Amino acid sequence: MSEKVFKGVEIVGTSDQSFSHAIEVAVARARQTLRELSWFVVEEMRGGLQAGRLEYQVTLRVFFRLEAQDAADSGGTLV
Amino acid sequence: MSEKVFKGVEIVGTSDQSFSHAIEVAVARARQTLRELSWFVVEEMRGGLQAGRLEYQVTLRVFFRLEAQDAADSGGTLV
Amino acid sequence: MSEKVFKGVEIVGTSDQSFSHAIEVAVARARQTLRELSWFVVEEMRGGLQAGRLEYQVTLRVFFRLEAQDAADSGGTLV
Amino acid sequence: MSEKVFKGVEIVGTSDQSFSHAIEVAVARARQTLRELSWFVVEEMRGGLQAGRLEYQVTLRVFFRLEAQDAADSGGTLV
Amino acid sequence: MSEKVFKGVEIVGTSDQSFSHAIEVAVARARQTLRELSWFVVEEMRGGLQAGRLEYQVTLRVFFRLEAQDAADSGGTLV
Amino acid sequence: MSEKVFKGVEIVGTSDQSFSHAIEVAVARARQTLRELSWFVVEEMRGGLQAGRLEYQVTLRVFFRLEAQDAADSGGTLV
Amino acid sequence: MSEKVFKGVEIVGTSDQSFSHAIEVAVARARQTLRELSWFVVEEMRGGLQAGRLEYQVTLRVFFRLEAQDAADSGGTLV
Amino acid sequence: MSEKVFKGVEIVGTSDQSFSHAIEVAVARARQTLRELSWFVVEEMRGGLQAGRLEYQVTLRVFFRLEAQDAADSGGTLV
Amino acid sequence: MSEKVFKGVEIVGTSDQSFSHAIEVAVARARQTLRELSWFVVEEMRGGLQAGRLEYQVTLRVFFRLEAQDAADSGGTLV
Amino acid sequence: MSEKVFKGVEIVGTSDQSFSHAIEVAVARARQTLRELSWFVVEEMRGGLQAGRLEYQVTLRVFFRLEAQDAADSGGTLV
Amino acid sequence: MSEKVFKGVEIVGTSDQSFSHAIEVAVARARQTLRELSWFVVEEMRGGLQAGRLEYQVTLRVFFRLEAQDAADSGGTLV
Amino acid sequence: MSEKVFKGVEIVGTSDQSFSHAIEVAVARARQTLRELSWFVVEEMRGGLQAGRLEYQVTLRVFFRLEAQDAADSGGTLV
Repeated sequence: MSEKVFKGVEIVGTSDQSFSHAIEVAVARARQTLRELSWFVVEEMRGGLQAGRLEYQVTLRVFFRLEAQDAADSGGTLV
Repeated sequence: MSEKVFKGVEIVGTSDQSFSHAIEVAVARARQTLRELSWFVVEEMRGGLQAGRLEYQVTLRVFFRLEAQDAADSGGTLV
Repeated sequence: MSEKVFKGVEIVGTSDQSFSHAIEVAVARARQTLRELSWFVVEEMRGGLQAGRLEYQVTLRVFFRLEAQDAADSGGTLV
Repeated sequence: MSEKVFKGVEIVGTSDQSFSHAIEVAVARARQTLRELSWFVVEEMRGGLQAGRLEYQVTLRVFFRLEAQDAADSGGTLV
Repeated sequence: MSEKVFKGVEIVGTSDQSFSHAIEVAVARARQTLRELSWFVVEEMRGGLQAGRLEYQVTLRVFFRLEAQDAADSGGTLV
Repeated sequence: MSEKVFKGVEIVGTSDQSFSHAIEVAVARARQTLRELSWFVVEEMRGGLQAGRLEYQVTLRVFFRLEAQDAADSGGTLV
Repeated sequence: MSEKVFKGVEIVGTSDQSFSHAIEVAVARARQTLRELSWFVVEEMRGGLQAGRLEYQVTLRVFFRLEAQDAADSGGTLV
Repeated sequence: MSEKVFKGVEIVGTSDQSFSHAIEVAVARARQTLRELSWFVVEEMRGGLQAGRLEYQVTLRVFFRLEAQDAADSGGTLV
Repeated sequence: MSEKVFKGVEIVGTSDQSFSHAIEVAVARARQTLRELSWFVVEEMRGGLQAGRLEYQVTLRVFFRLEAQDAADSGGTLV
Repeated sequence: MSEKVFKGVEIVGTSDQSFSHAIEVAVARARQTLRELSWFVVEEMRGGLQAGRLEYQVTLRVFFRLEAQDAADSGGTLV
Repeated sequence: MSEKVFKGVEIVGTSDQSFSHAIEVAVARARQTLRELSWFVVEEMRGGLQAGRLEYQVTLRVFFRLEAQDAADSGGTLV
Repeated sequence: MSEKVFKGVEIVGTSDQSFSHAIEVAVARARQTLRELSWFVVEEMRGGLQAGRLEYQVTLRVFFRLEAQDAADSGGTLV
């Protein structure tokens, strides 16, 4: 059956190393709270340059599958 | 009084039938958890084609009214 | 250490006065629930004109810092 | 001779059934007033969700051919 | 019944005071000619700086409801 | 006094020669009906290739000044 | 192993019935020539209105998996 | 019958003279290989300035009609 | 004679009061260094929310007329 | 002589390591089939997160020079 | 060695003749001040229509190579 | 006091290694001339493929704080 529902959340990860590492940081944090992560989309890449640093900042939208309401305990919630 | 606040959540609905049906699937799931849904915006339309199927996938942003904090029990929460 | 994670939520504030006031309305509501607000981005400005009114409506994405999971009680949650 | 001029007007059609039907509603209304309709472009798809409904709303730009000024009676006018 | 049709027109309002005032100027002018104004969308914000001035310029799309053709006298016309 | 209002209309001009000529075609037609044309913006450039031709097609938004309502006879009308 | 390569092709399907049907028309044609179709993205929705018709036109980008070069006979080619 | 399928290809033409001429260069090359060209869309206009030159570069998407598979010899192929 | 050249520079102004005031801050600073300012375009509106503040931040592109090179002392320079 | 023509093809490369590596994967595959590759543009960056993985996915448009038709054997073909 | 740095500047050229000529006007002015111009991108095409004129206005971003700092006298400066 | 002004400059960095390295190249060059760099935004990622190479090219907008005019010696200048 093909009726599935996913939710997207917007998160920003930062890193001193690279954009790829900033994505890993953001995804690792998302995995602490959300189950059934499915895919992400890169929305924006920026960076901080103050005090001689170079900080990579990536804005992602991360999507995960929503279970049906009566199965809410085993998946993410909508709000 | 005109000071209202709404929150938007991003959800993806899928269907074997049509984009309109994928929207209905997503909205029905949102109604299980959220009250006072107000409007939605279609962000993206994609589809899956693997194994001979044609799956319609619609990304929506769905908006609902936020009650004042002391009335949080009767409406959606911000986070 | 530079590995931080932020979450963005989309909110819409309305006002009879101006777009700047509609932003204040939305931010004040976000502060009731979320700690460590960091920045916002204006996504869209619209308005209502029915019955002779002029209502300013601003869609914002508001970002706040996510604490590590074991510190979730002192910060926002991801979902 | 290839020197033709078209005008575009922006209209929004709504329907309880589907986006395709909302387009039909908008085009049917345009045909009451405009002759020589040529093509349309879908600009935005939104919807209303209040009171348990699901209303499809489509914003179109509809284009029709402008006749030369001395033939204005048989075609659309520019303003 | 949910089959409604709206028309959008693009107008630019200018003001010496603020963008919010420029919107009020544009909407006030639209109300001289159009009935049943419903909503507007801000498309662009620019400004003039010549001769030491600061002029706020806002481009809006303003939408109003179209009556059925036989009721055209009480509402806006399509072209 | 800085409170002026302009209206924008969308027109498409075509030409066998060049995009610049297609713009001239569209502007010449607009001048037959509209007074106080002020500026235009190029929105899209396309072309027709059927039957060995190359037809240039330019979509413009053309803006003209709206007089106050009681002076409508000397300028463009809003709808 | 995660090193895969896909190619995207842009196709336009048309239908008298609906946008969903126009997508089916385009995908059915792509399946005559391409193997291992994976997903599609809707890029644009337009339509034809001449002679009283309403023709739905959908522009898609359709993606399929590219096999390694020495396996070109069993999959799509790059150009 | 309204079920037609078109394919779009992206080509870049360059010229020392003008953007219009760069389009002619690209279209002339496309006509050497493709039949039933239908329309094009201008995607981007850039230019080269090295060594004192001014080279016009236009990126187009050119669309042509796809015949049914059993008629592939008389038209373009999908890949 | 119509051959004029303008240069655009991107500046960000901030204010505690409103977006309109942030624009005034940015324009006032530009007027300290640049002559013949002509117009500006609003590119982005963001804000800072740390420590309970609400700081309005506006990104503008400000355009000013470039004199011919031999008159560079009385106008802006290109780089 | 400045009349050159290039063709762009859209490819997606995936990698477990980084976006830069995903680009290398896509380009290496393109070099198996296409000669005279000239440049690429990154269109979109997404990723897969299922089953605990982090897969980087990059959508590129890759451009290569088209020879004149009578030299088609030594270069890429248009379709 | 592949580590090069370029700077982009935004300029607007105007002409009574065509968009191509407006680009030539802008580029000729840039060449008075900047060395090692490399490429440009067309950002926007607009025009002036007041007093019966048709003035073509093109906004370009022009890029030139930055030498290393100790060679600043022979190239463009960064600010 | 919250009235600050920043200027943005557009620079392109190139590298044989990765997009992250190309950003470092661009930022290092900017630091030779500009003080008080604050942040950057990635605008575009492209690359060169000629002669078997793979060159990463990143277009950034880099922002730095502008001091008041009488303090121009210690900061960046506006033009």
